[in-house]
Amino acid sequence: MNTFGREFRITTFGESHGKAVGVVIDGVPAGLPLSEEDIKRELERRMFCHIHWLNPRCEPEEFEILSGVKNGHTQGTPIAIVIWNKRAISSYYDELWMKPRPGHADLAYYLKYGKFYDHRGGGRASGRTTAAIVAAGAVAKKLLSQLGVDVCGHIIELGGIEVRRSYTFEEVKSSWAKPLPVVDDEALAAMLETLRKNAAEGDSVGGGVEIWAVGVPPGLGEPHFGKIKAELAMAAFSIPAVVALDWGAGRALAKMRGSEANDPIIIKSGRPALESNKIGGVLGGITVGEPIYFRVWFKPTPSVRKPQRTVDLAKMEPAVLEFKGRYDVSVVPKALVALEAMTAITLADHALRAGLVRRDRPLRDPVV
Amino acid sequence: MNTFGREFRITTFGESHGKAVGVVIDGVPAGLPLSEEDIKRELERRMFCHIHWLNPRCEPEEFEILSGVKNGHTQGTPIAIVIWNKRAISSYYDELWMKPRPGHADLAYYLKYGKFYDHRGGGRASGRTTAAIVAAGAVAKKLLSQLGVDVCGHIIELGGIEVRRSYTFEEVKSSWAKPLPVVDDEALAAMLETLRKNAAEGDSVGGGVEIWAVGVPPGLGEPHFGKIKAELAMAAFSIPAVVALDWGAGRALAKMRGSEANDPIIIKSGRPALESNKIGGVLGGITVGEPIYFRVWFKPTPSVRKPQRTVDLAKMEPAVLEFKGRYDVSVVPKALVALEAMTAITLADHALRAGLVRRDRPLRDPVV
Amino acid sequence: MNTFGREFRITTFGESHGKAVGVVIDGVPAGLPLSEEDIKRELERRMFCHIHWLNPRCEPEEFEILSGVKNGHTQGTPIAIVIWNKRAISSYYDELWMKPRPGHADLAYYLKYGKFYDHRGGGRASGRTTAAIVAAGAVAKKLLSQLGVDVCGHIIELGGIEVRRSYTFEEVKSSWAKPLPVVDDEALAAMLETLRKNAAEGDSVGGGVEIWAVGVPPGLGEPHFGKIKAELAMAAFSIPAVVALDWGAGRALAKMRGSEANDPIIIKSGRPALESNKIGGVLGGITVGEPIYFRVWFKPTPSVRKPQRTVDLAKMEPAVLEFKGRYDVSVVPKALVALEAMTAITLADHALRAGLVRRDRPLRDPVV
Amino acid sequence: MNTFGREFRITTFGESHGKAVGVVIDGVPAGLPLSEEDIKRELERRMFCHIHWLNPRCEPEEFEILSGVKNGHTQGTPIAIVIWNKRAISSYYDELWMKPRPGHADLAYYLKYGKFYDHRGGGRASGRTTAAIVAAGAVAKKLLSQLGVDVCGHIIELGGIEVRRSYTFEEVKSSWAKPLPVVDDEALAAMLETLRKNAAEGDSVGGGVEIWAVGVPPGLGEPHFGKIKAELAMAAFSIPAVVALDWGAGRALAKMRGSEANDPIIIKSGRPALESNKIGGVLGGITVGEPIYFRVWFKPTPSVRKPQRTVDLAKMEPAVLEFKGRYDVSVVPKALVALEAMTAITLADHALRAGLVRRDRPLRDPVV
Repeated sequence: MNTFGREFRITTFGESHGKAVGVVIDGVPAGLPLSEEDIKRELERRMFCHIHWLNPRCEPEEFEILSGVKNGHTQGTPIAIVIWNKRAISSYYDELWMKPRPGHADLAYYLKYGKFYDHRGGGRASGRTTAAIVAAGAVAKKLLSQLGVDVCGHIIELGGIEVRRSYTFEEVKSSWAKPLPVVDDEALAAMLETLRKNAAEGDSVGGGVEIWAVGVPPGLGEPHFGKIKAELAMAAFSIPAVVALDWGAGRALAKMRGSEANDPIIIKSGRPALESNKIGGVLGGITVGEPIYFRVWFKPTPSVRKPQRTVDLAKMEPAVLEFKGRYDVSVVPKALVALEAMTAITLADHALRAGLVRRDRPLRDPVV
Repeated sequence: MNTFGREFRITTFGESHGKAVGVVIDGVPAGLPLSEEDIKRELERRMFCHIHWLNPRCEPEEFEILSGVKNGHTQGTPIAIVIWNKRAISSYYDELWMKPRPGHADLAYYLKYGKFYDHRGGGRASGRTTAAIVAAGAVAKKLLSQLGVDVCGHIIELGGIEVRRSYTFEEVKSSWAKPLPVVDDEALAAMLETLRKNAAEGDSVGGGVEIWAVGVPPGLGEPHFGKIKAELAMAAFSIPAVVALDWGAGRALAKMRGSEANDPIIIKSGRPALESNKIGGVLGGITVGEPIYFRVWFKPTPSVRKPQRTVDLAKMEPAVLEFKGRYDVSVVPKALVALEAMTAITLADHALRAGLVRRDRPLRDPVV
Repeated sequence: MNTFGREFRITTFGESHGKAVGVVIDGVPAGLPLSEEDIKRELERRMFCHIHWLNPRCEPEEFEILSGVKNGHTQGTPIAIVIWNKRAISSYYDELWMKPRPGHADLAYYLKYGKFYDHRGGGRASGRTTAAIVAAGAVAKKLLSQLGVDVCGHIIELGGIEVRRSYTFEEVKSSWAKPLPVVDDEALAAMLETLRKNAAEGDSVGGGVEIWAVGVPPGLGEPHFGKIKAELAMAAFSIPAVVALDWGAGRALAKMRGSEANDPIIIKSGRPALESNKIGGVLGGITVGEPIYFRVWFKPTPSVRKPQRTVDLAKMEPAVLEFKGRYDVSVVPKALVALEAMTAITLADHALRAGLVRRDRPLRDPVV
Repeated sequence: MNTFGREFRITTFGESHGKAVGVVIDGVPAGLPLSEEDIKRELERRMFCHIHWLNPRCEPEEFEILSGVKNGHTQGTPIAIVIWNKRAISSYYDELWMKPRPGHADLAYYLKYGKFYDHRGGGRASGRTTAAIVAAGAVAKKLLSQLGVDVCGHIIELGGIEVRRSYTFEEVKSSWAKPLPVVDDEALAAMLETLRKNAAEGDSVGGGVEIWAVGVPPGLGEPHFGKIKAELAMAAFSIPAVVALDWGAGRALAKMRGSEANDPIIIKSGRPALESNKIGGVLGGITVGEPIYFRVWFKPTPSVRKPQRTVDLAKMEPAVLEFKGRYDVSVVPKALVALEAMTAITLADHALRAGLVRRDRPLRDPVV
């Protein structure tokens, strides 16, 4: 329901305009260095406050670690993090009550939860709830760093503009120094232009991102179910607005013949390895020591200022809706950070399942 | 690990060339009509024995229901089904030992399980293991039929040939009367031609399928985690060779603006409904009473007769592999049936989670 | 780890002297009436503030519902409750660092979590953490009340003094009007005397309680695993200090012959029923419509003022420990309320698993 | 439902008079030596065929390992074991249909599963189903032996006769050379006499057993939920006929004062240890490196030849039942072996959860 993971396990809670959103992170071994700064950094990456016209009133999140951490280290007990909802402006939403916004979860929530759900700001279905996921991802990244695993993503498509050139993981990482993490400067300029234009017109755009995980050891993942690919797919589609996923070379593989698609196996540094990595680091659901990568696409933000046709559920008659609240011209930047977090959480979970980290005793160096 | 689902729960076992593959199906309420014929029919749909040149020695599966069924009805106890592996020819595989086949799970299994894994026929990673999933899917479909839910899929791409015209769910269903379930006869002819050509050349092809579920009631699915979309994505990527998934209109949505992408909400038969259904029947992870549909792509079968570069793990030196065993020119037809099964299993699970079927007493008519 | 339940699921967090203890309650359907008062009442029952000499500085808990409730009803989303630790006095614990208190979890936590665990007030192992369980139990009781299920317990043994006379469920319930819920006034007087004596001498006592659940419908519980009896046993032994459990007539049954032990089956109000109920309402792990009852025993509070032999883990040499902090002369009263809560949570979970409450739509009257 | 464990996970199936009972064992790492002999030995221990008058037609079980094992080692894939029901004589049960046997699960199954359940031989609720648990326990014991953990139990009470003298773990183990595993020869003689007498009179007796696990490393168990004590309690109450459990010194602790009950902490071999072990090796739900022990009591077998009052559910009128089938005069001997198995499974699960065994690669020596 609101829990994800088996051994590294997160439980999220909170509505967009309620008191807070938050997360309980369970399964982290004792002795992992963890500071408020670690959480803060990831929450800030999610906000993109530096693009002022995207986030006119951007302020840092106010959060508290309620449990599980002592003297800068994890205790081995559940880590509860609360992120207070101090900036919500609910007045926008009064007239939206019983008028489900097209493309939003409103209609589904009405059908399942009736008049009891909190519609303000999207309530439980709001992108805001991914802040809790990002906080949990910060802890997962911390644990993965002990195992030499690095997770980072970037934007590959926005408003129809695609990054077409090739790049290295280093370029992916350093793209975060730019206004948006896009390896291709030309594409980035066009994307920013498109965002500005849609903001001005009160419309929104979709796009796509790519996630990389490097340093992933072989042997993670559990067939039949519990395959790395399957659990990362579930992780990805848990993020609001996700509509498509390509694993490795993805749909291009479906158009190849077997003799083209297979990655030849070679010897590298005395070990078996893939010559190419079209398959994205996973065979039979299990990692082989090659980088993992996959691409995820998002629909445009459903909230737009243009008038949209909906239904007044109280009167059960057609209605027209003009949204006047704040909205993100694209969910892609924030969702990218949430996707990184879900990837890190999934891999941390698998590292624990596989016994790479012992939990009958505190963490020691080196871990493996 | 080898268990999927929370309330409708399947546990699979078996290697391709071991004694048997099988499944334990748990959570089915007592009193559901279920016969061996129900299982047999789905197992036969998976085999496509009617395309003789695809399956030269195609024979019906031999299976046994070991428990959970009495007098043509479920007992409420776990249903164990064993499908005997009587047709395996293992001699092909002797020379493949320690020579991982590119694109197969061999390398991953070697890294995780060492010399202990059964490589014959792909062992635990073989497509054969999806027979167990299909058997379980037969039971899930039986349960869903009590709720008015119908799950059916078809092939939309094979060897690069795509179905381009539009179609209804009825056409999807009736396409199963054809050699392959393809709504477009022209595309079908080209696909069969491509399969023949690749069979002759010892190569293989990938492709794509589309799954529909109609009659799905609103209110299924659990945010944050446990979203219908996320769990069906996990279900899909649990099937071997899956490389991409589009939910609803999928990647096309990512290129639209919000004002285009949103499905307007209208009144239909006195209830709120979607005018279009670009979003595939799910908003915020919850069903809204519209049909569910999604598309899944598969890479080509890794087994091909053309020589491929690999490594002799015993000598740790380069090797060339020429596969001489039987193989499927494309995994797509069998995988389609497995995907239908996983979809039915996931929806049956959600129907039970949501309490649509009571399990403190036997099934009665009508269920809901 | 820190999660209990499958469909009604609680996740707890918090250390005794950290910022807060708390719980996330997941799976509650939308539309259940729930107020802060409902939580407050159960938290107060746990405190027994009316016995002034037992709780010299007893104050009401300060708690917040952070999510999942709107206008006095559940939303269907996770309910997060934080109970602030405002009254902790940690100075007592400075000299206990690295000197594990005999009978406490200290030694186990040291071995598992090293120097990273918070020892103050027992940290994560403190009885204080059951406040979170009691808050969750309040929600479970609210849901069960919709199904006509009533859970209530009482004290049957304290400091060696046992209640020996028979009683009805009504007497059990009305015993809560007394200083301690004991049906037998004579035993109660002796128990209070024993508590006073041990408080004066700086020692502690154990005891036993009995839990009743009446109105439980037949058909709850899942064999082989997931038996009502087995899950309530797990629930009970999750409470700190539990050392024994008798189900129904319990150990007395083990001394009977089959012909004596079996409860004859009769017809009552036109339905099959048990004439006696020595078996405690459950056969084969499944409820039969009779009341559930079981008894649980607790060891004495490990904290006592008398000197105790332990080890200084820093110097790895013998040490003597004299505890000077506040402690409960017996855990029994508070643990009884926690046990009621765990019972209610387990039964609510089974009601949801069995589909007694639908969750594809909000709660309606009547539920079943 | 029919699955137990998180990382070492068993799924059982089968009715007493169906085709077979069986189990799928998941989570076992690759490379564990495992032979049919290992399973056979435990299945034989369960049968007590050497007491001829207890089991007049005792024959060895016929079982098959269907998957997961290759060349005498585990593959890392699920191990499916089927135990064929070849000796069932169902004719006894014809007249029992719709006449629930008092004390049996019949009534509960009728209420939950209606006319669909298989009542013959107790069906799914039969003690026979514990054969599957014992087979799984054989695998768990094999894995635990790699970690130096030894699990063994013995009978401490039968038909009211109790073992009263003290004993060592060595005596417990060597008691298995006797007709029944009872450390006290005098008690054993009286127990056998009681069994004979009850067999002659067509009645049955209950009793109690004690389970020991030695060599258990410290640091296993997860608070708040997932405590070793709580999960072993659940494991124990999953066995049919269990009615009581004492952990460590159990109910005796509840009568002590804190100053008596606490086990002093001392230094043993340079490490902190308990001087006594009244608490049974677990503090705060976590092992401390001391032996685990607990006692479990069973009610008498409900099947007796003496006439018993029940109800004819078809006519809904009172009926008298005289059972004529085979029955065990006491469930205690077989249940003891099942309880050992559940204990081993629970501890193996915790060893995997804590990461004592790595599963990203095959098992190596030494494990830890």
